[in-house]
Amino acid sequence: MRTPVNQYVVTRPLYSEDSFADDHEKVYRKHKTTLDHVKQFVTCDSKRVKNAALSLLPIVGWMKMYRIKEWMLGDIVSGVSTGLVAILQGLAYSLLASLPAWYGLYAAFFPVIIYFFLGTSRHISVGAFPVLSLMVGAVVTRLVPDEGPAANITGFEGLTMDEQRAIVSASLTFLIGIFQLAMGALQVGFIVIYLSDTLVSGFTTAAAVHILISQLKFVLGLNVPGFSGPLAIIYILERVFAQITSTNIYDLVTSIVVMVVVFAVKEINERFKSKLPVPIPIEVIMTIIACGVSFAFNFKENHGVDVVGKIPDGFEAPVAPNLQIFKETAVDAFPMAVVGFAVAFAVAKVYSVKHDYVIDGNQELIAFGASNIFGGAFKSLAASTALSRSAVQESTGGKTQIAGALSAIIVLVVTLAIGFLLEPLPKSVLGAVVIVNLKGMLMQVREVPYLWRKDRPDCIIWIVTCLASILLGLDLGLAVGLGVELIAVVFRTQFPRCSVLANIAGTDIYRDRKDYINIYEPEGVKIFRIPSPIFFANIDFFRGKLVDAVGFNPLRILRKRNKALRKIRKLIKKGELTVTSKGLQVTGSYPIEESEDESNMEELDQPVDFSDLPVQVNWRAELPCNISVPPVDIHSLVLDFSAVSFIDISALKGLKTALKEFVRVDVELYIVACDSYIIEKLKSCKFFDDEIKTSIFFLTLHDAILHIHELHPPLTVSEKVNDFHNKMQNGNASLRSREKTSKEPETKF
Amino acid sequence: MRTPVNQYVVTRPLYSEDSFADDHEKVYRKHKTTLDHVKQFVTCDSKRVKNAALSLLPIVGWMKMYRIKEWMLGDIVSGVSTGLVAILQGLAYSLLASLPAWYGLYAAFFPVIIYFFLGTSRHISVGAFPVLSLMVGAVVTRLVPDEGPAANITGFEGLTMDEQRAIVSASLTFLIGIFQLAMGALQVGFIVIYLSDTLVSGFTTAAAVHILISQLKFVLGLNVPGFSGPLAIIYILERVFAQITSTNIYDLVTSIVVMVVVFAVKEINERFKSKLPVPIPIEVIMTIIACGVSFAFNFKENHGVDVVGKIPDGFEAPVAPNLQIFKETAVDAFPMAVVGFAVAFAVAKVYSVKHDYVIDGNQELIAFGASNIFGGAFKSLAASTALSRSAVQESTGGKTQIAGALSAIIVLVVTLAIGFLLEPLPKSVLGAVVIVNLKGMLMQVREVPYLWRKDRPDCIIWIVTCLASILLGLDLGLAVGLGVELIAVVFRTQFPRCSVLANIAGTDIYRDRKDYINIYEPEGVKIFRIPSPIFFANIDFFRGKLVDAVGFNPLRILRKRNKALRKIRKLIKKGELTVTSKGLQVTGSYPIEESEDESNMEELDQPVDFSDLPVQVNWRAELPCNISVPPVDIHSLVLDFSAVSFIDISALKGLKTALKEFVRVDVELYIVACDSYIIEKLKSCKFFDDEIKTSIFFLTLHDAILHIHELHPPLTVSEKVNDFHNKMQNGNASLRSREKTSKEPETKF
Repeated sequence: MRTPVNQYVVTRPLYSEDSFADDHEKVYRKHKTTLDHVKQFVTCDSKRVKNAALSLLPIVGWMKMYRIKEWMLGDIVSGVSTGLVAILQGLAYSLLASLPAWYGLYAAFFPVIIYFFLGTSRHISVGAFPVLSLMVGAVVTRLVPDEGPAANITGFEGLTMDEQRAIVSASLTFLIGIFQLAMGALQVGFIVIYLSDTLVSGFTTAAAVHILISQLKFVLGLNVPGFSGPLAIIYILERVFAQITSTNIYDLVTSIVVMVVVFAVKEINERFKSKLPVPIPIEVIMTIIACGVSFAFNFKENHGVDVVGKIPDGFEAPVAPNLQIFKETAVDAFPMAVVGFAVAFAVAKVYSVKHDYVIDGNQELIAFGASNIFGGAFKSLAASTALSRSAVQESTGGKTQIAGALSAIIVLVVTLAIGFLLEPLPKSVLGAVVIVNLKGMLMQVREVPYLWRKDRPDCIIWIVTCLASILLGLDLGLAVGLGVELIAVVFRTQFPRCSVLANIAGTDIYRDRKDYINIYEPEGVKIFRIPSPIFFANIDFFRGKLVDAVGFNPLRILRKRNKALRKIRKLIKKGELTVTSKGLQVTGSYPIEESEDESNMEELDQPVDFSDLPVQVNWRAELPCNISVPPVDIHSLVLDFSAVSFIDISALKGLKTALKEFVRVDVELYIVACDSYIIEKLKSCKFFDDEIKTSIFFLTLHDAILHIHELHPPLTVSEKVNDFHNKMQNGNASLRSREKTSKEPETKF
Repeated sequence: MRTPVNQYVVTRPLYSEDSFADDHEKVYRKHKTTLDHVKQFVTCDSKRVKNAALSLLPIVGWMKMYRIKEWMLGDIVSGVSTGLVAILQGLAYSLLASLPAWYGLYAAFFPVIIYFFLGTSRHISVGAFPVLSLMVGAVVTRLVPDEGPAANITGFEGLTMDEQRAIVSASLTFLIGIFQLAMGALQVGFIVIYLSDTLVSGFTTAAAVHILISQLKFVLGLNVPGFSGPLAIIYILERVFAQITSTNIYDLVTSIVVMVVVFAVKEINERFKSKLPVPIPIEVIMTIIACGVSFAFNFKENHGVDVVGKIPDGFEAPVAPNLQIFKETAVDAFPMAVVGFAVAFAVAKVYSVKHDYVIDGNQELIAFGASNIFGGAFKSLAASTALSRSAVQESTGGKTQIAGALSAIIVLVVTLAIGFLLEPLPKSVLGAVVIVNLKGMLMQVREVPYLWRKDRPDCIIWIVTCLASILLGLDLGLAVGLGVELIAVVFRTQFPRCSVLANIAGTDIYRDRKDYINIYEPEGVKIFRIPSPIFFANIDFFRGKLVDAVGFNPLRILRKRNKALRKIRKLIKKGELTVTSKGLQVTGSYPIEESEDESNMEELDQPVDFSDLPVQVNWRAELPCNISVPPVDIHSLVLDFSAVSFIDISALKGLKTALKEFVRVDVELYIVACDSYIIEKLKSCKFFDDEIKTSIFFLTLHDAILHIHELHPPLTVSEKVNDFHNKMQNGNASLRSREKTSKEPETKF
C-alpha cells in the first residue's frame, strides 16, 4: 500500500464482478426475515418487560437520578415563572379557539399532570399551542357557528353556544389524543420527519398570518363571527373592514399601548440577554396593570370593552366524548394530532440536544396521546407546547418536569382561588400580547429570498405551503405542502443531468466529456453515466437520453436489419443472390421493391436470426442489391451505475428492454460500479437471461474499459490509414469494422 | 493505457478535487438562465411559427405522406370493423355512466371527428372508455340520484331525469376537455409519468371490480339505484342481494348464454390468432342474434326485460355547458381529465413504438381537450380510448386515423338510419358483453404475488391503490395511490443500508467490512458510505448511523473536553496545577468537585480554545486531577459520496452541523467521489468556512486513504509493541497517539 508521496500507484488483476467474487469470497450473512422480526418482537423475557415498563414510565428513570440540592431551586423558580406565563397564554389562546377563556387554563393543568409521568422531555412546557388552538377554533366555529344554527348533534339540546363549543373542543381533544396514542402504539413516530424544516416554516408563517387576522377583532373591539374552510381569511378581512368604523377606541388604544410596551421590553430582554438574570416578565406585568386599569375605570360597563369575564372557581365535571362529534371531526383531528406532536417533538429535540439526554418519539406520542385524552375528558383545549413558554421554563432554570408540575399547581391555584381577579382583563390586551409574540413566526418570511438563491425546489415548497395554508386553511394547506414536498423529492431525481464520460488521458479517471479539453473518448465506446436512482418516473427519460448519447435508436436498427434479412432471404430464394466463399454475390438483375412487408411486425423485434442462412451478414460492410441498414458506430456501451441507489420494478423492466435492444444490434454491454444490493435484486427479479448475462458487471469504469481494449485493440495510426484506404478502394470491404464520427479528431487525416 | 492481459495498472498523481482542478482545467460552459429560457420561448421566427402550426395540426403531416394504394384498403376494413364495435361499446358504456344508451354512440362520433384533425396517434380508436364512463356515472348519480331530488341547479326545471343526467354528463365532458386543453397549453403532459405501471394496474383492477358490480343489476334485471362516494360498492352489493329473489330469469339466462358464448369464442380467437385472418366479431354477432330473439318473443312486453329502447333518429341540438355544474364537478373532472388522457396516451405509445412513429403528449392533450369540448357541446359522453377497440382498429389493418373517421361515419349511419333496429336489444346483453371484457383487467391480480416476491414497496402500492379505489371510489382511490407512490419513492431512500467500508488488501477496492474476511481497515480511519441521496427525510438517520459507525458522539466529546478545560483553568487559577515543560503537573491536593457548572451551555459547543492557556492539552493522553474525557480512537473520517445524487437545504444544514462536530474533536474529514454539481452547490450555499474547507474533497476513496497514510504513517509491528508497553508502563504517556479497539485483530498481541 505504501507509495511515494503524492503518487497513486495500483497494480491488481482486472476485475469483473464475477472474477472478483471468485477471488474474494463473501462472508455469508443471514438477513433477518419478516418472521424473525416478528419472533423477536413477540419474544418476552423479564429484562425486556422491565425495559418496556421503564420506557413507558420515564418518570421512574429521571426521578431516581434527581439531584435535589442542585436542581430543586431551579425547578421551583422555573415552575412559578412558567405558571404565570401559562395562565396568560391559556387565556389568550382559548380566544384563538373561539372558546371561553378558562378552557385554555385547563390546558395548562390537566395534560401537564399526565405528561409529568409519561413524557421523556425534561424541558418542554406542555399546554396550549397557538397554531393548534387556531385549528381547533376552525372546527369549533364550523360545528357551532356564530351565525346560523349549530350542527345537528345529539347532546347539543338546551346548551348555550359556549357550552356546545366546549363539548366540541373537548371531544376533538379526546380524539386527537386517541390518534396520538394509536400512532405511539404503532411506533410510527418517525412520520414527523416528513414535516421538513421548510414545510414547517412555511406552515407556521401562514399560521401566524391566520392568528394575526383572527386577533384583529379583539384588538379593534369588533364583533366578527368566526369563519372556517377555504378562503375563510378573506371573509374575515372583508367583515373586519366592513365594520372598521365601529372600532372601539378604548380597545384599540389599550392594545397599541400594550403592543408597543411589550415589543420594546422584549427587544431590551433580547439585547441584554447576558446581563439580565431572568428576562423581564413584561407580559405578566402589563396584564396585571391592564386588569387594574380596566377594573378602576370599569371598562366593561362604561366603554363597552369586551373582557374575560367570570371564571368559574372550580373545575367542571368530566364529560364523556361525543361519538357524533368524533365522526364529524375525524378528518380534522388527524392533521392536528400530527402537527401538535411534531411541534412538541421539535422543541423537545432542541433541548434534548442542548442538555444531552435522550427523548423517544414514540413515547412522546404516547405521553401526548394520554395527556390529551385525559385533558379532553376535563374539557381542556388540545395540548402541545408553545416555543415561548418552553423557553421560559428552560431559561429560568427548569431541570425536570417538576417545574412543569409546579406550573400546573400555580395554574390550579389561580383558577380556583384568585381567578376572579382576571375578570376585568380586556380581551384586547390578550389579543395584543398574542400579536406581539408573532414577530418570530412572521419573520420567517426572510428565509424566502435565501431559499430562492440556494435551492429552488425548497423555495417553491415554502411558498406553496404558505400560500395554500393561508388561503385554503391550515389543514388543507398542510396536505398540499406535504404533496408538493413529496413531488419535489421525485422531481429532483426525475430530470437529472446525464452525461457521457471520457477518460482523462494517462489516468483511471473518467469525467464529463464536455467539461475538459484534453479528454480521450475510446473509439467505438460510449460511457453513459446515470446520476440518480432509476424508477418509474425517470426510466423513459433515461432511455431517451441514452439513445441521444449513442446517436441511434437500437430498435429501429434492429428492425431495419431484420427487414434487410427478409429481403436477402427472398433474393436468395429467387436465385438473384448466391452464397460464395467471399460472401453474398449478386447474380441476377433484381427489381427494386418498393412495398414493405408489414406482416409480422413482432418478428422484426426479435434477435437477428442467421440460422437458415448459409452465411452471416456483416452489418458493418455494405450490403448488396442496394439494401441499406444504418451503421452502428459503437461496439461497446458502458453504463456507470455508481449513483444508482435504487431501482424499482418499472425501471427494471424498462432497463431490460433497453439493454436487450442494444444487445440485439451487437453492442456489448457493461455496467460498472453497481451496488451489490442492486445486483442481488436484479438476480432475484430474473433480470438475466441468454442475452443479458451477469458477466456484464465490472468493478470500476477503468476495469471495463481495459477489458474492452483487450477485446477491441485500438488501431494504431498506420492501421487507421490502411483502414481508411481500404474503405476508399473497396466499398464492400468486410474489414470495415469501425465507423468513426467526424467528432473524433483522430479520424481526420 | 495498454496493459498486460487482465492486469489493472495505474500510475498517476494523487488527486484531491482541488489538485485535480489545478492540473486539468475545466471548459467554461455557460448554463442557460431562466431569462434565457424565457427569451428562447418567446422568440418568434417564420420557421418556428410554421413548426408550431404543423405540430398543432398533425393531419397535415400524415396526409402528405398518405400512400393511397397501400393503406386505403386497410383503413376501410378497419374503419367498418371498428365502427361496429364502437356502436356496441358506446351503448354498453353509456349504461356505466347511468345515461340513456345513445349518448355513448355520440362519444363514438363527435370526439373522433376532432381527433382526426388534431391527434398524433394513427392507431387509437377515440371514444367511450369504461373506467371514465364509470367515473362520469358516479358524478351523474350524485347530482341526479335515482331516489330523492336532484341537486338544486338552474336549468333542471321541467326536465326528465334522463335529460338532467345528459346535461350533467355533457357539462362534465366539456369541463374535462377544458382541463385537458389547459394542460396541453401549459405543456404539462409529462405528469402522466407519475401514474406508474403498478399504480395503473391496481387502479384499473379496482375499476374492473366497480364495473362488474355496476353491471350486476342489468345482468340480473334488478332495479338498483346508483350510488356514489366512499363505500358505494358496499351499498350497491347490499341492495343487489336484498333484491336477489326478484331476479328476472330471462335477463339472467340471456346474459349467461351471451357470456359463455362470447368467452368461448374469444378464447378461440386468442388460440388461433395466427390462423384467423380477422378475429371472429362474436360480440357483434351475439348482439344481432339477441336483438332478433328479443324482438321475436317481445321480451320487453312479455317478460319485463329492460331493453335499450327508442334511439332518436337525429342528433340533439348543441347545448352550452352549465356553469353551476362546472362548480359542482370541478374536483371530479380533474382526475377524470388525467385518467382519460393517461390511458389514451399509454395505448397510443404502445402502437407508436410498434409502428415506429412519434406521438406528442402535449399535442395529444390538446387533441383530447378539443375533442371533449366539442363532444360535450353535443352531449357526448367523455372520450378517451378503449384498449379492446383500439386493438380492433389496429389489428384489422388500420394505418391512419382515416380508419377512425370511417368508424365515426359508420356510427353516424347506424344512429341516423338503422338505430331503430337496436331498440329491442336487452340491456342484460350489453352488461354481459361488458363483464366478459373485464377478464384482462381482473387478471391483473396475478401480478400481486409476483410483485410481493420482487419488490415489496411496489406491491404495497398496488394493493393500497386497488383497495382504496374499490372502497373509497375511483377518484379518491387514485389520489391515495398517488400519495402512497410518492411516499414510496421517499421511503426507498429514507432508510438505506449504510456501511463501513474497508480495503481489499493490495488493491484500490473498498467493500463493506462485514462482507469479507480478508479485508483491511486502516487504523484510525473510518470509511462511511452514504448509499442514497441526502434530504430532509434521512439526514437525521444518517447522522445517527454515522455516530454508530464511529462509536462515539462527537458533540458529547467536545462538551466533555470543554468542561475539562474549564476545570483545568480553574485549577491553574487556584494554583493546584502548574504548567511545566513536561505539561501540566499537579501541585496541590485538589478537592473533588461534584457539581457541574451548567452556565453558558452554548459555550461548550464551541471549538476548544487553548488561547488563554500556556499549553495545549493532549486529549489522547491521560489528564491530571482525575479529569477524564472519553477517548477518540479515529483520526480521520472518510465519507463516500458516490451514490449521493442530490442534497437539499435541510440535509446541507444537518450535514454541516455533523461535520463541524467531528472537526471540533480533531477528526480529519474527507469526502470522496462527490459529483461535481454537488460540490458546486455546496459552494454556492456557503457550506465552506474556516472549519470545513474545500480541500476535503478527493477524487476516489483510494486517493483519500493514500493521503491519510502520508499524514499518519501506520505503525509497524515493533512500533506497535513499543507503543503497547509504553502505555502499560506510563499511563500519562503523551505518545499515546492512537487508541485501538478490540475489534481490530492487529491490536491483539
